[in-house]
Amino acid sequence: MKNKLPSWNEGPARQSIIDFIEAVTAENGSDYVKPDDRLAVFDNDGTLWSERPAYFQLLFAMDRVKAMADDHPDWATTQPFQAVLEDDLDALASGGKKALVEIVAQTHAGMSTAEFEDIVLDWMTTARHPSTGRPYTELVYQPMLELLSYLRQHDFTTYIVSGGGIEFMRAWSEDVYGIPPQQVIGTSVETQFELRDGRPVLVRLPEINHVDDKEGKPVGINRYIGRRPIMAFGNSDGDQQMLQWTDAGDGLRFCGLVHHTDAEREYAYDRGAHIGGLDKAWDEALDKGWTIVDMEKDWRWIYSWNLDQA
Amino acid sequence: MKNKLPSWNEGPARQSIIDFIEAVTAENGSDYVKPDDRLAVFDNDGTLWSERPAYFQLLFAMDRVKAMADDHPDWATTQPFQAVLEDDLDALASGGKKALVEIVAQTHAGMSTAEFEDIVLDWMTTARHPSTGRPYTELVYQPMLELLSYLRQHDFTTYIVSGGGIEFMRAWSEDVYGIPPQQVIGTSVETQFELRDGRPVLVRLPEINHVDDKEGKPVGINRYIGRRPIMAFGNSDGDQQMLQWTDAGDGLRFCGLVHHTDAEREYAYDRGAHIGGLDKAWDEALDKGWTIVDMEKDWRWIYSWNLDQA
Repeated sequence: MKNKLPSWNEGPARQSIIDFIEAVTAENGSDYVKPDDRLAVFDNDGTLWSERPAYFQLLFAMDRVKAMADDHPDWATTQPFQAVLEDDLDALASGGKKALVEIVAQTHAGMSTAEFEDIVLDWMTTARHPSTGRPYTELVYQPMLELLSYLRQHDFTTYIVSGGGIEFMRAWSEDVYGIPPQQVIGTSVETQFELRDGRPVLVRLPEINHVDDKEGKPVGINRYIGRRPIMAFGNSDGDQQMLQWTDAGDGLRFCGLVHHTDAEREYAYDRGAHIGGLDKAWDEALDKGWTIVDMEKDWRWIYSWNLDQA
Repeated sequence: MKNKLPSWNEGPARQSIIDFIEAVTAENGSDYVKPDDRLAVFDNDGTLWSERPAYFQLLFAMDRVKAMADDHPDWATTQPFQAVLEDDLDALASGGKKALVEIVAQTHAGMSTAEFEDIVLDWMTTARHPSTGRPYTELVYQPMLELLSYLRQHDFTTYIVSGGGIEFMRAWSEDVYGIPPQQVIGTSVETQFELRDGRPVLVRLPEINHVDDKEGKPVGINRYIGRRPIMAFGNSDGDQQMLQWTDAGDGLRFCGLVHHTDAEREYAYDRGAHIGGLDKAWDEALDKGWTIVDMEKDWRWIYSWNLDQA
């Protein structure tokens, strides 16, 4: 292949990825891994696409509150909905996690799984990311798309392991990342089987089944995949346990972190950030020699449309 | 292929399977389904292997009680453990579901996922099925092994969707059925991520996460796969909702039931059976024209070792 990972600049991060893939696919090498065991797991928010000004799924939930407000006149004077309707992010933030749970329960449950998929796809088509004016699916990182593709060319199976909602991501993950629904692991709600006019439906309930973050990531990997990945990529402390779990297997392993260093082309944040904070996982990466991708230095372009502008 | 499904006798059941597979794989046919959507789900107990004299996993749990009894002297006089230790199946049955839950909690939790896998594999190697004297993995149905293989030759992805324990099955499903862990869906316990001497482990907890039976089967299919199968095979009322869910999709569908009609070579039971009862699902199959496999008439051999005896 002439242009391996063309959106990656030459440097230690790109080289560590290529070295790893060559090592585990060299049939007579000591680090050879058979194709069935070539599993690579990727966090989504901040690793495969941007997560500012807020997790895109939260922006989706806020748009849903606005779309549903006519049917809920009481929301105009009830928090946390009032804060959403008035675009008062400070008031929303003051409600903490409880406010988010209420918003998600109201906007992500009560409909069938098929209805929810339609709502997500409709939003993905019509909603625009505030600072770029682009559809959210254009906020995916071109270098990571190339990496996913490069891995699959080498008989890796690529998984998403994200704190985001599993059915939120599955609606578009195959089109955007080439990752089919059965390779998407995320936070999930309980669903209930019902017959409606003799036709079975699955109804989404306002109860959490699995929180796929921090310790929940290796739990989710074990639950859904049942075998340990050999490669893991994240960007925040929420990915630390997934990286530890991956790293602890036998044989050669790859653990990587995307470091948001590019205030001009994307965003710059790490220690102390309220979304996607990178602190303890960074320390462990430095300690263990995991790969740290410096977005500013290592990526030639961030988004695919940067190429048109170049 | 000259010998399609050689352990199946000519007849309507075998023919309905072949017709379905030919229809969905005929590239210019009106029923064509692209390979990514060729998902087939199979119940395990009573569909891929036998379930008498009791679910094999229950026999495993009872063997575990005996193996652990030295460390639990109180079990000699405490139900339901006393019943297990005295092989008193009536006393055990009188404890109902609560007794089973207690036995499973004691024997299936408290260890790491890796330790549990070792325990299962050890049992599979050493334990013997009471009436045949064979390892349990030799109680799999040869005609169904051929069907799994035939499906995969036609680019189907084959899944297990079973009320049995997901990690109990995953330990041997790839060796026995050619079905890798990520294609096994079952009843699961909660697990907890821990660092032990700096090494991450997942500990199995005595709490259920998912019961993969009846309404839980379509819930599990949606949770793990995220798309609807086009083919489903079961043998009991516990599979009815999985068959309904599969049948309700657009396009050609295959729904099948294994009917245990062979008292001589295997077992004969249906309506009213306390294990693997087939009643409401049978009525629905008759009503909707689902395929019913008559084990006595449709299967030339039941187990692979019947061929050696032939």
